[in-house]
Amino acid sequence: MAEPAARSPAEPGARPGPASPPILRRHRRRYSSTTFHVCGISLSFVSAGMLACALLERLTTDRDTAALAVSGAAAAVIGAGAWYLTAPGAVRNRDVFSAVGWTWVVTTLMGALPFLLAATFAVGGADGLEQVVNSLFESASGFTSTGSTVLADFERPGRGLLMYRQATQWYGGMGVVLLAVTVLPFLGVGGLELVSAEVPGPGSDRLTPRVSQTVRRLWAVYAGFTLAVALALFAVPGPSLFDSVAHALTTASTGGFSPHPDSIGHFGSVAVEVVMMAAMIAGAVSFTLHWRAITGHPAYHRDSELRTFMLVLAAAAAAIVALLWLDGGLGLVESVRVGLFNAVSLGTSGGFSNATGPGSAGDYVVWAGGAQMVLLFLMVVGGCSGSTAGGIKTLRMQVLGVVMVRSVRRTQMPRAVIPVKLGDRALAEGVVARVVGFFLLHLTLVLVGLVAVTALGGDFESSLGAVVGALSNMGPALAEAGPTSTFADAFNLPARLVLALCMVIGRLEIVPILLMFAAGWRRLQDLSSPPGRRLTAS
Amino acid sequence: MAEPAARSPAEPGARPGPASPPILRRHRRRYSSTTFHVCGISLSFVSAGMLACALLERLTTDRDTAALAVSGAAAAVIGAGAWYLTAPGAVRNRDVFSAVGWTWVVTTLMGALPFLLAATFAVGGADGLEQVVNSLFESASGFTSTGSTVLADFERPGRGLLMYRQATQWYGGMGVVLLAVTVLPFLGVGGLELVSAEVPGPGSDRLTPRVSQTVRRLWAVYAGFTLAVALALFAVPGPSLFDSVAHALTTASTGGFSPHPDSIGHFGSVAVEVVMMAAMIAGAVSFTLHWRAITGHPAYHRDSELRTFMLVLAAAAAAIVALLWLDGGLGLVESVRVGLFNAVSLGTSGGFSNATGPGSAGDYVVWAGGAQMVLLFLMVVGGCSGSTAGGIKTLRMQVLGVVMVRSVRRTQMPRAVIPVKLGDRALAEGVVARVVGFFLLHLTLVLVGLVAVTALGGDFESSLGAVVGALSNMGPALAEAGPTSTFADAFNLPARLVLALCMVIGRLEIVPILLMFAAGWRRLQDLSSPPGRRLTAS
Repeated sequence: MAEPAARSPAEPGARPGPASPPILRRHRRRYSSTTFHVCGISLSFVSAGMLACALLERLTTDRDTAALAVSGAAAAVIGAGAWYLTAPGAVRNRDVFSAVGWTWVVTTLMGALPFLLAATFAVGGADGLEQVVNSLFESASGFTSTGSTVLADFERPGRGLLMYRQATQWYGGMGVVLLAVTVLPFLGVGGLELVSAEVPGPGSDRLTPRVSQTVRRLWAVYAGFTLAVALALFAVPGPSLFDSVAHALTTASTGGFSPHPDSIGHFGSVAVEVVMMAAMIAGAVSFTLHWRAITGHPAYHRDSELRTFMLVLAAAAAAIVALLWLDGGLGLVESVRVGLFNAVSLGTSGGFSNATGPGSAGDYVVWAGGAQMVLLFLMVVGGCSGSTAGGIKTLRMQVLGVVMVRSVRRTQMPRAVIPVKLGDRALAEGVVARVVGFFLLHLTLVLVGLVAVTALGGDFESSLGAVVGALSNMGPALAEAGPTSTFADAFNLPARLVLALCMVIGRLEIVPILLMFAAGWRRLQDLSSPPGRRLTAS
Repeated sequence: MAEPAARSPAEPGARPGPASPPILRRHRRRYSSTTFHVCGISLSFVSAGMLACALLERLTTDRDTAALAVSGAAAAVIGAGAWYLTAPGAVRNRDVFSAVGWTWVVTTLMGALPFLLAATFAVGGADGLEQVVNSLFESASGFTSTGSTVLADFERPGRGLLMYRQATQWYGGMGVVLLAVTVLPFLGVGGLELVSAEVPGPGSDRLTPRVSQTVRRLWAVYAGFTLAVALALFAVPGPSLFDSVAHALTTASTGGFSPHPDSIGHFGSVAVEVVMMAAMIAGAVSFTLHWRAITGHPAYHRDSELRTFMLVLAAAAAAIVALLWLDGGLGLVESVRVGLFNAVSLGTSGGFSNATGPGSAGDYVVWAGGAQMVLLFLMVVGGCSGSTAGGIKTLRMQVLGVVMVRSVRRTQMPRAVIPVKLGDRALAEGVVARVVGFFLLHLTLVLVGLVAVTALGGDFESSLGAVVGALSNMGPALAEAGPTSTFADAFNLPARLVLALCMVIGRLEIVPILLMFAAGWRRLQDLSSPPGRRLTAS
C-alpha cells in the first residue's frame, strides 16, 4: 500500500520534471496510470501476506490452506501484472486521490477473497450473498484497521486464516501511516499539513524526491514497533507466540482484531492489559515523532498535539472511572481497571476489549449512560495526526477549540484581530478553513450514515455508535454492536455495506473518496476530445 | 422583555452621545444599570399578563385566581420599581449581554411563581422541591418558547392559569424577536448580522436612534400575526374561542404549549392542522420580511435563507413521508398527514403534536428510526434568523454548507481564492468565523448537556433528543420524552434543571449567557478600585 505520490507542482497539466525520483520516472512503453500502478504495488504486498499465512495454515490447522494459497496467487498475478505493466503517470492532486481511493477499494475487494473461498461466514444458514457481504465487511474492517467484526464462530477459520485477518489490519495501518505522513498533508486535506511544521528539527517527513527514503523509514519504525509489542506480550505470562504476534499486528495499527472472541478479556491479565494500553497509546502518536526519538532527537515533550491528546485521554478516563464508581455496580479497583483500559482502547481507536463476557465489568454497553457518552466523545476525537489512529484527530480538535474560544473573545472585542494560535504558532486562515471544512464534512457523513443505517432498520443507539465508530475506524460500537456482540447481530446486509463504506471513507479522511473519480473522468474526457485539446501528455 | 440596547460605539467606556434616544438618556439621580432597567421593563409587562389571566381565571374556573393575582402584583411592584428607580446605563456589549441574560433568568424565576402558588405540580406525591423544579422548568420552557412540559394533569390548573402558561410563550417569542432583530445582530453574535444586509430595501432593522420605532413595529407585526392566527383557528370548525386564542399565543412564538394534553391531536381536524402548519411556517420566517410585506415591499421571493429553509423543509418532509409509507405501518394519506405536520412542527421549532395518543400515527417516537433521524436533523437546523424559531438557524447552516463545499474545492485547486458566497454576496471572513464559532459552541453544549443528562440517569436517546430539543427551543423530544409523554416521566429533578438551563442558553444564542456576568464583574472591580482608575463614569 505504498503511495508513490508527490506534491503537484501546478494545476492543471503537471509534468514530472527532471528531478523526479526513479519511482516517478515515465516509462514510455508502459500504460501510464498512477492508480493502476499503486493498486498493483498494494496487491503484490498483500499477496505476500496471504501466501505466508497459507504456509502457516498448512503447518498448523490446515483447514483453509487452499483458500489462502489461491487468493495469494491471484493477488500476486493481478498485482504484479498491474505493477509491471503500468508506469506511474502524472501526480496532480486528482491522480493521487484516485490512486489512494482505488487502492483501498481494490485491496478490500481482493482481501475478501480468502474469507469467501474458505466459507468463513457460511454459518447459521448464511446464503451466498450474506457470505459475500460479510467477507467484504471483514476485509474493509481489516484494511481500514477499524476492528468491527461479523465473525461469530472463531473456531471455524484455521490459524493461518485468523492470522491473515490480523495481517489485514497490519497492512492497513502501514498504508495509513504512509497516507497520513507522506501523502495527505501535502495535498492540503483537512489542514493536517500543520503536522509537518509542528516539530522543528531535521525534517524527515517531506514528500519530496526523498519519498522512497521516507517510506523505508516508516516501514522500519512500524515493523520495529510491531516486533517490540510482540516481544512484550510474549514476555508477560499468558499469551502464546501466536497470540503475541497476532495482537502485535493489530496493536501497531490500532486495529483491534483479535483471534479470540473475547479479545483481551481472554487473558484476564492486568499485565497483558498494561502492555496493550502502552502499545495502543504509542500507536496513536505521530510516527514522525517516533522516528525522531529513534534517531536520537526525541520531541515528544515539545509536541502540543501529543500533550493535548494525553490530557484529554487522562481527563476522559478519570471521568469514566468516577462515573463507574459512583454508579455503584463496580468497586474502585475494578472501575479503574475497566475504565482505563476502555478509555485507552476507544480513545486511540484501538477497539480491543477486556470484557470477559456479555454484561461483565468490561462490557461498556452496560455501563452508566454518562460513561458511554464520554467513550463516544473519545471515539470521535481519535488519536494524533500522523498515526494509525482514526477519528477527527486531536490536532484538528485543538484548532476547532481555538476557533470556538476566539469567536467568543471577538464578541467581547469586536475590533480585535485574534489569530488562531497553536502553542506559539499562528495558523494561516487557509489551514483553519480546511480544518473546519473537514469537520463539517465529517459531521455531514455521520448524519448521512445515521439516516441511512437507521432507515435500513438499525436502532438509534447502535446505529450512532456504529457509524461514528466506522468513520473513526474505532471498532466495536454501542448497544447491540458492543464489544461482546458482532455487527452481524445488530445490522442487516445493506447496513453492513454502508458501514464498510463509512470505514473506507473515514480511513482516507473523506476527500480522496469524494474525488477518486475525478482523474478517471478527466482521462475519459481527454480520450473523447480531439488530440490537440488534450490536457495531459500520454 | 424589551431590550433598549444600542450598538456599542467603542470599547471600553462607551457613553451615549447627544443623539441617544429618550430611552437611553441618562437620568443622573437614578441608579444607573441597564440590567436592572431592562429586567424591570420585562417584569412589568409580564405582570400585566398575569393580572389579565387572573381576571380570566376569576371569570371562569376561579381556582387559581389568588396565585395569579399575587404573582401579578409582586411582579408589578418589583418590575415597576426596578424600571423607575433605575436608568439605563452604558450600552457596551457586556452591558447588553448582562441585560439580556439576567432578564431571561429573572423573568423565568418570577414566571414560575403562579405555578408554585397554585400548586400546579402538587400531584403524585410531589414534595416541595419537586414542585419548585417543575414550576421553574415550565416557566423556562415558556419564556424560551420551547414547549417541553412537565404538566401531566391538565385538569388541575384553571383556565386562567392555562392561558397564563400560553402567554409565557407569547412573551418569550416577542422577546426573542426583539433580541434576534434589534440586539444580537449588532453585537456580532454568531454571524447573524448578515440578516440586516440580506434584504436590500428601506432599512427598518437597524438598532440606531430609531430603536423605539423598531420595537413598536415588531410589536405590531407580532400582535397582528397572533390575532390573525386566532381568527383563522376560530374560523375553522373545532377550536373554541379559548382554544383559538391559546394556540395563537403559542404559534406566533413557535412555542408549542397547548391547553390540551394531546395538543393539536385534540381536534382531530385536518383544517386545524393546515392552519397551524401555515402559522408555524410564518412564525419561523424573519419578522423583518413580514414587516416589509406589510408595508408593501414584499421580499420573500428574494430571500435566499427563506428559499433554503423551504427547500430543506420540503425535502425532509418528503423523506419522512416516504420512510413512513415504505415502513408499511401507515397508508399513504396518513403518512402524508402525520409526516408533513410533524416535519413542519419540528422544523419550525414549533413542537405541537397531532398524535391522538401514545402509539398513534402522529406519535413519532414509534416511527421508523430513519424518519426520527430526519426529525432530529430538522430540530438542529431550526427556522430562519430574525424569527421566533430556535435551532442553529438556516442562515448559519447555509454558511456552513458553503464553507464545507469550499474546503473540497480548495483541495482540488489549492491556489484558488474562493470567497464564501450566499446568493450573490461574498461574506467577510470575520462573519464566517463567527458562524463557525457559534456552531462549535452549540455542538460543545450538546455534548456537555448530553454527558450531564446521561450521567444524571437519562437514557441515551431520550437525553439526546431532549438536549438538542432544549438548545433548539423545539419542545418534545425522542423516546421517553416524546410528544405523548412529559419530561417528568423521562428525567429526574437535576436533569430537568439542566434542560431548563439549556433552553435559556439556546434561546439567547449562547454568548449572552457566557458573558452575562462580565458587566457585573467589571462594576465590582470598578467599585473596589480607586476612583481615579475607574473605567466607567458613574
